Amino acid sequence: MSVLYNRVALIGLGLIASSMAHAMRRAGLAGEIVGTARSAETRDIARELGFCDRIVDTAVLAVEGADLVVLAVPVGAMGAVAAEIAPHLQPGATVTDVGSVKRAVIETVAPHLPDHVHFIPGHPLAGTEHSGPRSGFAELFDNRWNILIPNGADEAATEKLIDLWKGMGANVETMDADHHDLVLSVTSHTPHLIAYTMVGVADDLSRVTDSEVIKFSAAGFRDFTRIAASDPTMWRDVFLANKDATLEILGRFTEELFALQRAIRIGDGEALFDYFTRTRAIRRGIIEAGQDTDAPDFGRTGKHK
Amino acid sequence: MSVLYNRVALIGLGLIASSMAHAMRRAGLAGEIVGTARSAETRDIARELGFCDRIVDTAVLAVEGADLVVLAVPVGAMGAVAAEIAPHLQPGATVTDVGSVKRAVIETVAPHLPDHVHFIPGHPLAGTEHSGPRSGFAELFDNRWNILIPNGADEAATEKLIDLWKGMGANVETMDADHHDLVLSVTSHTPHLIAYTMVGVADDLSRVTDSEVIKFSAAGFRDFTRIAASDPTMWRDVFLANKDATLEILGRFTEELFALQRAIRIGDGEALFDYFTRTRAIRRGIIEAGQDTDAPDFGRTGKHK
Repeated sequence: MSVLYNRVALIGLGLIASSMAHAMRRAGLAGEIVGTARSAETRDIARELGFCDRIVDTAVLAVEGADLVVLAVPVGAMGAVAAEIAPHLQPGATVTDVGSVKRAVIETVAPHLPDHVHFIPGHPLAGTEHSGPRSGFAELFDNRWNILIPNGADEAATEKLIDLWKGMGANVETMDADHHDLVLSVTSHTPHLIAYTMVGVADDLSRVTDSEVIKFSAAGFRDFTRIAASDPTMWRDVFLANKDATLEILGRFTEELFALQRAIRIGDGEALFDYFTRTRAIRRGIIEAGQDTDAPDFGRTGKHK
Repeated sequence: MSVLYNRVALIGLGLIASSMAHAMRRAGLAGEIVGTARSAETRDIARELGFCDRIVDTAVLAVEGADLVVLAVPVGAMGAVAAEIAPHLQPGATVTDVGSVKRAVIETVAPHLPDHVHFIPGHPLAGTEHSGPRSGFAELFDNRWNILIPNGADEAATEKLIDLWKGMGANVETMDADHHDLVLSVTSHTPHLIAYTMVGVADDLSRVTDSEVIKFSAAGFRDFTRIAASDPTMWRDVFLANKDATLEILGRFTEELFALQRAIRIGDGEALFDYFTRTRAIRRGIIEAGQDTDAPDFGRTGKHK
């Protein structure tokens, strides 16, 4: 693939931005990659690892002459970054982001941006429970989905950004911001909140020791702890920024949970069996869609690798 | 390792029993392994796969001359199996089970058993989302925990059963039945119920299509769907049989969930951040204890294999 952007500015150098740098290099998509982060320590690590061509000390310096600017900071910090860089953006540049919520990002970022740039928010559905510049790798986006919110932006600019993500290995889907926030509340935000809660309950229960929780975690809880090990700042911002959809899905969740709780209390085995059978079908769909491995236990066991 | 039991009878030939057969053979722990299952189809598959020395048509035939009898049927079926085999058990034989709850199994099985056998319930904390005789493999128990409930049984018989599980690769812990049921409610039963519920909510939500749920599942939901793909019969029985502990942990869970929900509603970012930071530490403990891999995304991504 050939160079799509002459200079890409990565603002924030965590898991997503560092993986983007690795993935853009793998496919030769950027002429130059310039990175910056608020913390001097993060900038030093990024310099040491060398996944950007240049690391600069401020966002203003990073966007200078950039034809693509990627906001890869926590959702709660995006508005301030947008205000800071706005006067320095090159006419015709594309500005995108990688935040997990989209309506709130549009509301806080768009008002700052000049008319002469293309703002096309995005959300790559990829990640691990690790964070920071050392956690990035080129394959993170391979066969994962990236959702872009064209939001009325220029078509050619949108197509180019789609090509970039495809070049980094991702599949691309476009939708509007509100629908994104609802879908992600179901597939990501609410599951994370629930996992955090369950892990917190385990930690609180004095009659069950922490060492027991840890020893016997293989039986289901382990998957929750992985989810609940994700970056606290990012997730705080997600829930604050996607409040309405999260509260709606949480309401539905507790409603269903209470129905199952009642079935357990009254001993209605048929209701439980029917519910558990129905959910099995969804898993099959995910495996058929290539979004997970069918290897038992995610391939953790040696035999099925 | 040398032969510990001359004849092992496996009653039920699903994931756990078939894995036990593979694991006992790997280490040469049993003189002969005799298997049976209620369904003729399961017995035929087991004959075809050949992981037992003999497959017989009834539980009564299976226990004939066996010095170890393993009840590997759903918890709800254990009482009936115990009643059926009781008159045919060899004096001095050990009877164990692999059910996910222990108090209810003891209450339904023990009354049927003659005094001349040793009843030592057990629960191997190992499994995958697959079930049936084809899903078994020798490594399933390697470095996983098996909990035994000696429940006043003969010490020598208990030690021998511990040696068997160690020989199959497991670590062994003993505790009483009620404590087991509480611990497992936290680390397994309630997480499963929650995962089932979340997957059910996604399926119900007409404004989010099934294909969207499937496509965008990588962002957290995927782990829930794996859990929610487990055997419906087994889990129905688990919740009916471990009602009290499940309802207690569910009560604590909804209490904490409502507190987080309130923090989201009133925009209390500090409370969310603190909660999410605390749960991160538990994950580190699990990885340090060797009960999961630290590879990002469970090693699904190619790079970290």
